[in-house]
Amino acid sequence: MSVQPVLIDGDWRESAGDDTFQAVNPATKQPLTDEFPVSPWSEVEEVLQAADVAFATVRGWSGERFAAFLDAYADAIEARIDAIVDLAHQETGLPVEPRLKNVELPRTTNQLRQAAAATRDGSWVNATIDTATGIRSQLAAIGPVAVFGPNNFPLAFNSIAGGDFAAAVAAGNPVIAKGHSSHPGTTKLLAEAAHEAVQATDMPSGFVQLIYRTSHEDGAKLVSHPSLGATGYTGSRQAGMVLKEAADRVGKPIYLELSSINPVFILPGALSERGDALADEFTSSCLMGAGQFCTNPGIVVLKASDETDRFVEAVAAGFAKTPPGTLLSGGVEQNFRAGIVALQRAGAEIVTGNEPADGDRFCYANTLLKVTGDQFIKNPHGLQEEAFGNASLFVIASDDEQLARVAEQFEGNLTGCFYTDRNGSDDELYDRLAPIVRHRVGRLLNDKMPTGVAVSPAMNHGGPFPATGHPGFTAVGIPASITRFAMLQSYDNIRPHRLPSTLQDKNPDNMWRKIDGEWSQQDIT
Amino acid sequence: MSVQPVLIDGDWRESAGDDTFQAVNPATKQPLTDEFPVSPWSEVEEVLQAADVAFATVRGWSGERFAAFLDAYADAIEARIDAIVDLAHQETGLPVEPRLKNVELPRTTNQLRQAAAATRDGSWVNATIDTATGIRSQLAAIGPVAVFGPNNFPLAFNSIAGGDFAAAVAAGNPVIAKGHSSHPGTTKLLAEAAHEAVQATDMPSGFVQLIYRTSHEDGAKLVSHPSLGATGYTGSRQAGMVLKEAADRVGKPIYLELSSINPVFILPGALSERGDALADEFTSSCLMGAGQFCTNPGIVVLKASDETDRFVEAVAAGFAKTPPGTLLSGGVEQNFRAGIVALQRAGAEIVTGNEPADGDRFCYANTLLKVTGDQFIKNPHGLQEEAFGNASLFVIASDDEQLARVAEQFEGNLTGCFYTDRNGSDDELYDRLAPIVRHRVGRLLNDKMPTGVAVSPAMNHGGPFPATGHPGFTAVGIPASITRFAMLQSYDNIRPHRLPSTLQDKNPDNMWRKIDGEWSQQDIT
Repeated sequence: MSVQPVLIDGDWRESAGDDTFQAVNPATKQPLTDEFPVSPWSEVEEVLQAADVAFATVRGWSGERFAAFLDAYADAIEARIDAIVDLAHQETGLPVEPRLKNVELPRTTNQLRQAAAATRDGSWVNATIDTATGIRSQLAAIGPVAVFGPNNFPLAFNSIAGGDFAAAVAAGNPVIAKGHSSHPGTTKLLAEAAHEAVQATDMPSGFVQLIYRTSHEDGAKLVSHPSLGATGYTGSRQAGMVLKEAADRVGKPIYLELSSINPVFILPGALSERGDALADEFTSSCLMGAGQFCTNPGIVVLKASDETDRFVEAVAAGFAKTPPGTLLSGGVEQNFRAGIVALQRAGAEIVTGNEPADGDRFCYANTLLKVTGDQFIKNPHGLQEEAFGNASLFVIASDDEQLARVAEQFEGNLTGCFYTDRNGSDDELYDRLAPIVRHRVGRLLNDKMPTGVAVSPAMNHGGPFPATGHPGFTAVGIPASITRFAMLQSYDNIRPHRLPSTLQDKNPDNMWRKIDGEWSQQDIT
Repeated sequence: MSVQPVLIDGDWRESAGDDTFQAVNPATKQPLTDEFPVSPWSEVEEVLQAADVAFATVRGWSGERFAAFLDAYADAIEARIDAIVDLAHQETGLPVEPRLKNVELPRTTNQLRQAAAATRDGSWVNATIDTATGIRSQLAAIGPVAVFGPNNFPLAFNSIAGGDFAAAVAAGNPVIAKGHSSHPGTTKLLAEAAHEAVQATDMPSGFVQLIYRTSHEDGAKLVSHPSLGATGYTGSRQAGMVLKEAADRVGKPIYLELSSINPVFILPGALSERGDALADEFTSSCLMGAGQFCTNPGIVVLKASDETDRFVEAVAAGFAKTPPGTLLSGGVEQNFRAGIVALQRAGAEIVTGNEPADGDRFCYANTLLKVTGDQFIKNPHGLQEEAFGNASLFVIASDDEQLARVAEQFEGNLTGCFYTDRNGSDDELYDRLAPIVRHRVGRLLNDKMPTGVAVSPAMNHGGPFPATGHPGFTAVGIPASITRFAMLQSYDNIRPHRLPSTLQDKNPDNMWRKIDGEWSQQDIT
């Protein structure tokens, strides 16, 4: 048993902290061997100082430098695939294949390479040139970024390898990674690959750093520290709100992905047309990965009918016969069970599940709950509490009017889905409901479950609070996600040779720039 | 004496509030005739409700509708020019000509018309289409916007006519204007023009509403209300931070322009080359409008030398011989004097001024203070308190090293300026200092004072906290300022006929859209 080192200013060094923690294998409930340190504030300050120095070094570097690092890092991860996915499996219980090895790891390296391509191309800076006034502007690095990763994607959202990391680096910022306590070993393996890439591409020593855990107070001090540029956080609403308050108080941007129940509306025509297929599609989407996705469909809204009853029965049967997946940790199981109790207290009735499952691992029966539209409208907040895991709540409205009133109750969500029939009988109702839901969600879907989150430039993995902290930004999708970690910089009457290369008259790399209102890849002549 | 009505849901009606206030003519210290009501919370709730209904009505309307309103509003203002500028003069003491009539009013109507052009064009929505995945995204209206305007621009930043108003409407949002208490009559005249334009262009009755004042508690309730989309605020840091905390707690975007001291670095070569001209230029910029500009040059950083001494003397002479301008209100005069006292307590020495001026109007002597670089580095926060008015602080550093250390102490500012010589002797020092300042300001200038803020697409009237609440956004400049009042909306697998027109394959209006990574004005074929 050994205490693992932290990565500070380019050195893997023993932590100054006395406290340690261990990861637990959720499939066995047994602790894993390695111990990981809790960093004291003095150590966090060292990290901040090194990040500050690194930022002063890289400020103004061309995108090519950051791209070279990101590409080298993706290669270094690929040189360690088996070790990474094996340890991630032990720490999270997620299957090696296909999930970790064939889906999440390639997604991770793909994100790093897409970020590399975007920073190399440079168009993400939104260079804007007004030749009449001589004013030019662009987005530029905001300063060291702290990334707090979640428990549910040990690779693709990892604090030192995931989407926030890639975006922060692509914008030109050093990253301070705060690993998630449920998969510290995986995070360390990724950090070793990152460290190798830092060295291979001559990045400054403080450009990528890793600590595993701090006290809550020190987390709040980190996100509000004068040296910090911004924070990316994905995780629980409670912990996130503490960080948000600390950062907001000193005007430090913090991008949070907090909680989302992702309402799915299945309209009557669709249910008549393909109810059985939809029951299968929903069951599979909801139980995949034991429901531990940010975009898990946590609420389904239906209109009362015999077909709705049959749909509920079919889903209940599917839930009952599907073995429950392993939950990520004891804490997740505990919160999940508490979440179900809270929904019951708020008036939801159990349709199936709500019982302990296999005691040798963290898990709980696939659970389906239901309420009437009346009940939902009476207690919309209580019935929108997220039970993160393999559960969903059906809301059964009495009529079209009540469907609209249910829709109006939704808080901000990442996604909202509508299933309608092919012959148009649902269209009038869709036209009434969709604008209400549209305003409350980041991504609207038709005839599709929300669980897939493509890395597309048009993706919005974001949405109004409480899904995130600001509805204008996305955590997934390049280049949009990069702009979160940038500040707007205007140049007024700056002597031409002093302008950054991206804003000079010559445009040798054919960046897209907005010149006098028109997008162009040309020089200014 | 009569109590003026509020504008709620399309009606000019008597306020339900019992309390009233009057504006004061700062040039005479006499109250003006009209009384204006303080709206109770019940009235604010009515306003929110009407804005909610208006938003449900206009959601999805084409840009043309909002553009027609904005253009009609600009025309309606121009039909009332003399009444508006006369009353604005009485309420603010700002001169009718050239300031109000020839500069600020044309700027106001120009902003409204630029916003109209941008929303008609539609390119501001940043339409992004990924044909491979079928995902499309754009920015869209965020919901009713509350605008709190400042005291210092009764027209161009007025809550019901200024930059935030124009941007919020261009994004498709109803506006709830909270007038500034120092110029309620001007605000009412503008609201009458807005109301006329609302009627002429068939906008819903709750699209533009006006209240004059609320309690601080009700202001905080307004910015955090579930029906509200976002807030734009320009004003004091203290009041702004109270609103920010309330809005942040519930994840409602709030864009604040708070305080800025706008450092100006005059490097030694420039001082040798054109010290006298710079003294005149600085004096004129600093004292214009009694220094009551967000971008007033509140700090000048110089290197100790005989030429610096001569520069300080020349500015002091200019300050002493220029009659002090009229301050906007008794509160401004009081805060200004308190600000000078605070700078003295923090170690600043008076060079000239710091005495009462003409007692018949609100004003105070043009005041110049100075400190050494040493002192500034020892108490950087105390010496960066804004004294809003006709004052500036000179920081005199001992050498180049200390200039850099002074630069590193600056908090976030709207602007940072450098004056350097023409023959290049300052270039090495510029290259050292400019990157430090660049990261701390929204707009960097060369050889130019910061007080002019062009309405340019490349303008950044923003900057890191405490200048604003988020360094990624600008309050001036179209279309960039519009995006503040929008949310990101992604469409995933949406049936083509259900897409908003801006995201459909056909692009009849030749909007700029980003299709598969390339900007284009074409259809998708």
